[in-house]
Amino acid sequence: MPRQVRLRRHPVGALAADDFHVVDVPMPEPRDGEVLVRNTWTSVDPAIRIRLAAVAPAGYFPAFGLDAPMDGIMAVGEVVESLAVGFESGDTVWHTYGWRDYAAVPAGAGALGALGSLRRLDTAVAPAHAYLGPLGPMGLTAYAGLFDVAELRAGDVVWVSAAAGAVGSLAAQFAKLRGHTVIGSAGSDDKVAFVLGELGLDAAFNYKRGAIEDQLRAAAPDGIDVYFDNVGGDHLRAALSVLRRWGRVAICGAVSQYERDRPAPGPDNLFQAVANDLTLRGFRGSSYTDRMDDMQRDVAAWLRAGVLRHRETVVEGLEQAPEALVRMLAGGTIGKTLVHIA
Amino acid sequence: MPRQVRLRRHPVGALAADDFHVVDVPMPEPRDGEVLVRNTWTSVDPAIRIRLAAVAPAGYFPAFGLDAPMDGIMAVGEVVESLAVGFESGDTVWHTYGWRDYAAVPAGAGALGALGSLRRLDTAVAPAHAYLGPLGPMGLTAYAGLFDVAELRAGDVVWVSAAAGAVGSLAAQFAKLRGHTVIGSAGSDDKVAFVLGELGLDAAFNYKRGAIEDQLRAAAPDGIDVYFDNVGGDHLRAALSVLRRWGRVAICGAVSQYERDRPAPGPDNLFQAVANDLTLRGFRGSSYTDRMDDMQRDVAAWLRAGVLRHRETVVEGLEQAPEALVRMLAGGTIGKTLVHIA
Repeated sequence: MPRQVRLRRHPVGALAADDFHVVDVPMPEPRDGEVLVRNTWTSVDPAIRIRLAAVAPAGYFPAFGLDAPMDGIMAVGEVVESLAVGFESGDTVWHTYGWRDYAAVPAGAGALGALGSLRRLDTAVAPAHAYLGPLGPMGLTAYAGLFDVAELRAGDVVWVSAAAGAVGSLAAQFAKLRGHTVIGSAGSDDKVAFVLGELGLDAAFNYKRGAIEDQLRAAAPDGIDVYFDNVGGDHLRAALSVLRRWGRVAICGAVSQYERDRPAPGPDNLFQAVANDLTLRGFRGSSYTDRMDDMQRDVAAWLRAGVLRHRETVVEGLEQAPEALVRMLAGGTIGKTLVHIA
Repeated sequence: MPRQVRLRRHPVGALAADDFHVVDVPMPEPRDGEVLVRNTWTSVDPAIRIRLAAVAPAGYFPAFGLDAPMDGIMAVGEVVESLAVGFESGDTVWHTYGWRDYAAVPAGAGALGALGSLRRLDTAVAPAHAYLGPLGPMGLTAYAGLFDVAELRAGDVVWVSAAAGAVGSLAAQFAKLRGHTVIGSAGSDDKVAFVLGELGLDAAFNYKRGAIEDQLRAAAPDGIDVYFDNVGGDHLRAALSVLRRWGRVAICGAVSQYERDRPAPGPDNLFQAVANDLTLRGFRGSSYTDRMDDMQRDVAAWLRAGVLRHRETVVEGLEQAPEALVRMLAGGTIGKTLVHIA
């Protein structure tokens, strides 16, 4: 029987794999306007952790229910039956009904709103699972965060935290490809070696090896202009101290905060924003769907030219998804984390 | 002999008037390119408190030295001797060498950079001391903060904290004059009555009379789009909770923080910026000098039309300046606080 991963309890503090279980379910039956998809890959994202809380932040995607399908997680797969105009059996598609073997997916807006719409993929450009990474919402988040949210300008010095992660590694490379000086940070020496060696960043540091602000200043002695924030907390504090006048922060995520059992206080140096005319702008990639075409055009060109790397951490088997999420949140993965279903 | 107010010690925690003393000094002798000014009015501003610390925030105006002239505080006065081209005895001028009876002031950039330049005033538009309020940097700060920093848009619902203060009362009125729904907050019932009655705001609350977020939601049941922040701390936290999608914060100041003896943590709900695509932008009015002409044109027109109120709290005598600053920081003044020297 088809399987689904479901949440058994809302975790408080560090996530454990047995906060989930895998259940057998009947084969979904597509209704009119829907397609039945056999999922081949599904996504493991830090943002899933936010929605595991009993209540998600106001205005954010809703919390996952207990023992319910986890709608709103990305997957790609093949259409095995279509009752929707414009889709046919055999189509390779992207949708947001992941963490399960089979899904009945409506054509049109899906579980994440407009961004979540069922889409047919052009696998001539890249294999299907690349649409869970650089060619999909990860790419859009990095692209919009850098170019729209942070309003990257010629000459900007850029710091990207979690630079070995799915979004961070793309944001860092996009900035490099546009000619910027880019500093990366990550939580292990292996990741630092990856962002220096494979991604070609100008400087990088392991935030666990010393005070973040000191390491950042050493890497950027004249300061930074843009901080692409995937981490929050002490990372954001360091950025506020090191940003130059008119600097900008794109707040993409705050992975340092997601496993806390109560909200952490914000940075105690927010007055630097006044002193130096700084802008902090939070965003969700899904708010910038109008940039998807631009992103896909640029990313496809960079992939074709062989100048954009996208490292993946792949786990085999749907039942491994929870453990993969735990590992990623603990810092044990590099690049985009994917589950290969079959 | 001419007098100067000087700082005796860097205050930690609540400021006291005897952290200052008044000293007699020789009559300043203007050098070539300078004018000698007899000051008639000088300004009392929350931002002075920031510069009383032993070390001011990096990138901000420098801390005041001990037992030294307090350069960089606004004043207006009359030129009594000119060695500068373009200025004559009898001119009414604005400059940044206040908190003293007489000042030798260079023509050109002054103690606050370009914004601090010696300027001759058109007293046909308004009396000289109005250039310490709505027609000067207070007006510029409110104007740029609202229109440039917060990028006020048609239909925005605006919250202004410290709405009975020098900058807040202007920002709130500017937004009203542009047709917006404006909510004000302040720290006493008298101030609330002032912003409702005299300034004509749509709603107002005393933040000491209940939870800020609850009172703000009651005043703006559908949320707010712009928060003009003069206070920081718990006010900023409430704004982050109540701002609608694509909302903006202009961080003008953080008066709740200036008298703390150590940095306060930032808001614990900064993730709302991600969830709702919010922008927080710090600024200094002095970074927007290119908007001074626009501001003066609009404010002069509003003053002529009698639609802009500017309440003042005036103390008589230079020696009262420290006490006036203490009173203002304790919330005991309304509108612009001014010292009338003679």
